[in-house]
Amino acid sequence: MTNVTTAAADPTEPGTPAPTRQARGEQTRQLILETALRLFRERGYAETTMRAIAKEAGVAVGNAYYYFDSKEHLIQGFYDRNQDEMRVASVRVLADEKEFAARLRGVMHVGIDVNGPYHSFAATFFKYAAEPSSPLSPFSSASSPARDASIAIFRDVLDGSTVKLDPELRKELPELLWLGWMGVILFWVYDKSPDQRRTRRLIDGAVPLIDRMVSLSRLRVLRPALRQILALIESVRRDD
Amino acid sequence: MTNVTTAAADPTEPGTPAPTRQARGEQTRQLILETALRLFRERGYAETTMRAIAKEAGVAVGNAYYYFDSKEHLIQGFYDRNQDEMRVASVRVLADEKEFAARLRGVMHVGIDVNGPYHSFAATFFKYAAEPSSPLSPFSSASSPARDASIAIFRDVLDGSTVKLDPELRKELPELLWLGWMGVILFWVYDKSPDQRRTRRLIDGAVPLIDRMVSLSRLRVLRPALRQILALIESVRRDD
Repeated sequence: MTNVTTAAADPTEPGTPAPTRQARGEQTRQLILETALRLFRERGYAETTMRAIAKEAGVAVGNAYYYFDSKEHLIQGFYDRNQDEMRVASVRVLADEKEFAARLRGVMHVGIDVNGPYHSFAATFFKYAAEPSSPLSPFSSASSPARDASIAIFRDVLDGSTVKLDPELRKELPELLWLGWMGVILFWVYDKSPDQRRTRRLIDGAVPLIDRMVSLSRLRVLRPALRQILALIESVRRDD
Repeated sequence: MTNVTTAAADPTEPGTPAPTRQARGEQTRQLILETALRLFRERGYAETTMRAIAKEAGVAVGNAYYYFDSKEHLIQGFYDRNQDEMRVASVRVLADEKEFAARLRGVMHVGIDVNGPYHSFAATFFKYAAEPSSPLSPFSSASSPARDASIAIFRDVLDGSTVKLDPELRKELPELLWLGWMGVILFWVYDKSPDQRRTRRLIDGAVPLIDRMVSLSRLRVLRPALRQILALIESVRRDD
């Protein structure tokens, strides 16, 4: 949609003081997003149109399009909001904890807490996000803001901790932890145990192992193996 | 579909000698499967009906249903055939090689060779297989024959090799290698490099690392870490 139509569909009145206008806009945006998520859950993602979302939210279709260009933008909005909730909750976890393993475990549990209410939705929605060419894939360029924000949390987990590790591994670790986190999310999507307990156990079991490997990275005797791992990552990352 | 309709739709003539009947049946089955895969590629999986597949293959709809109960059974047929090709090609690779790393690398490259012609299909089809509740998921009970056959190949990789490893790890390793193989396939689905070269590099880089870890499993000093890993696997496998 063009900027012209965007401006035409702007529901805020000229002359209203900026903060109020902004607050009202944010409220409408949230209403549309929540309505969309509810309809996606109730009727399925493919079956829900922008028109139906606008109608159910009680706003004009043009108004809905003002906030979200497409259904995919609604999902990106959902990702961004979850990402934001995870970041805010992580700040609390990370405030008083200096130990790497405790920080990592805390952040991962917080991430599962935030996503918890959407588990059944995630299981049905996953197929759209899993398609390699989809902008909703966590590896797509459209997802890069959410991905960067997520990697930043894991960088914070590392940088705010007292752990000592190999300097080359330190550079790569935030992205590797994010990749591991995607693995946890994949496991969580498939997890049919009550309250996704198996995912909690996976986190509790995997974090001490990661912590151990990170600490061992400084041992001279393990340096060849570490170099081999980093070279492998570098080689599969190359685009040719 | 019931056995009664199955019998009614049986295209073979009574009285024909068994081997001929069987051969002709197998030929029809292959024709339907190949036609289906072509239409799935050309028109998309969701958009292709059993009716269209039967028409394009020049067989009666009832005949198509005699061989495949549904489109999902066609995909299972595709899995089984690929699995079978991988097994046959693996036999050649494994015949003269006793070294664990070479056996594992050989089998994985063979697996990528076999799947190669279906890469673009796999990228579009993946979303159906990725849905946790789908019988087409590699973790579903419907996929268990293909999964067991695949695990058996990795058991053969291990058992026919001269590698020495911790006995508890030996019990778990075929399934862990299969899980790693699923990771390679996931990477391959997302791999946009020419001829999926990055997947080949992933295999070549990961196999020596796996080999090293497997050999290290016998070291007494690493036993606590190994026990920790096996306990983690055990705990996330539990269904509660």
